[in-house]
Amino acid sequence: MGNNQPMKIIATVPEMQRYSEALRNSGKKIAFVPTMGYFHDGHLNLMREARKQGDCVVISIYVNPTQFGPSEDLEKYPRNFERDSKLAEEVGVDVIFFPSNAEMYPDHYQTYVTVEEVTKNLCGLSRPVHFRGVATVCAKLFNMVKPHMAIFGKKDFQQLVTIKRMVSDLNMDLQIFGLPTTRETDGLAMSSRNVYLSPEERQSALCLSLSLKKAKESYDQGERDAGRILESITNYIKGIPFTRIDYIKICDTTTMQDVSSLEKESVLALAVFVGSTRLIDNYVFGEELNIE
Amino acid sequence: MGNNQPMKIIATVPEMQRYSEALRNSGKKIAFVPTMGYFHDGHLNLMREARKQGDCVVISIYVNPTQFGPSEDLEKYPRNFERDSKLAEEVGVDVIFFPSNAEMYPDHYQTYVTVEEVTKNLCGLSRPVHFRGVATVCAKLFNMVKPHMAIFGKKDFQQLVTIKRMVSDLNMDLQIFGLPTTRETDGLAMSSRNVYLSPEERQSALCLSLSLKKAKESYDQGERDAGRILESITNYIKGIPFTRIDYIKICDTTTMQDVSSLEKESVLALAVFVGSTRLIDNYVFGEELNIE
Repeated sequence: MGNNQPMKIIATVPEMQRYSEALRNSGKKIAFVPTMGYFHDGHLNLMREARKQGDCVVISIYVNPTQFGPSEDLEKYPRNFERDSKLAEEVGVDVIFFPSNAEMYPDHYQTYVTVEEVTKNLCGLSRPVHFRGVATVCAKLFNMVKPHMAIFGKKDFQQLVTIKRMVSDLNMDLQIFGLPTTRETDGLAMSSRNVYLSPEERQSALCLSLSLKKAKESYDQGERDAGRILESITNYIKGIPFTRIDYIKICDTTTMQDVSSLEKESVLALAVFVGSTRLIDNYVFGEELNIE
Repeated sequence: MGNNQPMKIIATVPEMQRYSEALRNSGKKIAFVPTMGYFHDGHLNLMREARKQGDCVVISIYVNPTQFGPSEDLEKYPRNFERDSKLAEEVGVDVIFFPSNAEMYPDHYQTYVTVEEVTKNLCGLSRPVHFRGVATVCAKLFNMVKPHMAIFGKKDFQQLVTIKRMVSDLNMDLQIFGLPTTRETDGLAMSSRNVYLSPEERQSALCLSLSLKKAKESYDQGERDAGRILESITNYIKGIPFTRIDYIKICDTTTMQDVSSLEKESVLALAVFVGSTRLIDNYVFGEELNIE
């Protein structure tokens, strides 16, 4: 595959399944990147990794309504299929799966996948149906695309933990990879939602990545008390204009439960409104952090 | 496949997945019959049909705890693996998948599949977690066995509707077939739970199949009012010793909602306790009924 054939766009489930089944039967490895489109370099890095690991790279572009709450930004979520498909082609994507809502959720649709424990905390608290929607659409996409591996970003850390848990619990025969967060040169985690930010808000938004840096520095100096790290970051963010904290927590990376001390592998996770835009970021203690 | 090789027994998920993936890649069609074991001729008929339709017949034997309520008969559910495997071999089964509870539901297990609408009525009312357990274990088994088709009995009609709905909603790439209920010569639907019945209860248990026969006769004579059919059957069963009605309903076969008249395709569904044994049976109006 790769650059020999023009990139293909598939819009229906039966065509996607036939295509993937034929690839599998011919011994080709399918690497899959599910997305909601409006690509930034974070998405493209996932596709580049898929290009390295798979014989065939399939991506999906689908803004999934079941993972948005009623008061969230489903309608205004940014979309630009033409630009996205050009970018995808440039990084060597073989197939874009681009289904309609009617194809994904036909009349009488009624089946949902719930991952019960790891979804309770963090974003699960402020976005109650979010992870049910994520798990459900991923289960559907995996059954459509039949990949050998799927690649996600670590920026959506709880999403990655949820999907790994679903894949393991439901015995889906594919590997899930999580890639480090891609950042702007000043440290802001790339996100399709960054386009919502005004120039002043864009400046304030740096408080998320700078909080991670502060937390890493404390950890590297030997701090193991979660409460002290959280207190320091909370006070810092409270002083930044345009911000409103949704949550700042430190959790066990397996159970996603709050921890009081950093003994097992733990993650600092933040969700902060900057203006009306909700941004998230996270840092797994002990790992590298690509912030200047 | 068929009778050339000895029947294989597989107990682990990775071995089952490797086996099935290799079969699929060699172009073989896998026909799958999931069971809870303790075979009667109803099970064997499903396997005989799988033998006709598939190149390789895989069955599973697993008494799934997540589909039993806390006060139900999980512990005493009858089991006899040696007898079952002999019977399976005789009808030409290629593989028995026979996993342990630890293999199916390891520590920290937390993912469930729910089919929301068609599970609400009938058995969903009296067995609230039942269909969540059924859908979840079938999703898992389908991911393990990777069949091209799976074959179920129509005796568990709501189960069949639920599984078809899940497969369609989650885009699982396999076909689901429902086979007519296999009956004893006097009409009683075969069930592993029939062994619980005393000789007197066994006689009373005939009221289920005889109710279906009555309903078919009314329908064939032009009756289309659901209430009148239900009333006549309810009165009849109330007069039978050892019985206690759980439900008697007539439902649309697509939505499983109660109907008042038999215009769209409808099913009469009964659940009746005979002594302490809960038996079910059903009749889809307009179909054949193999009761003398």
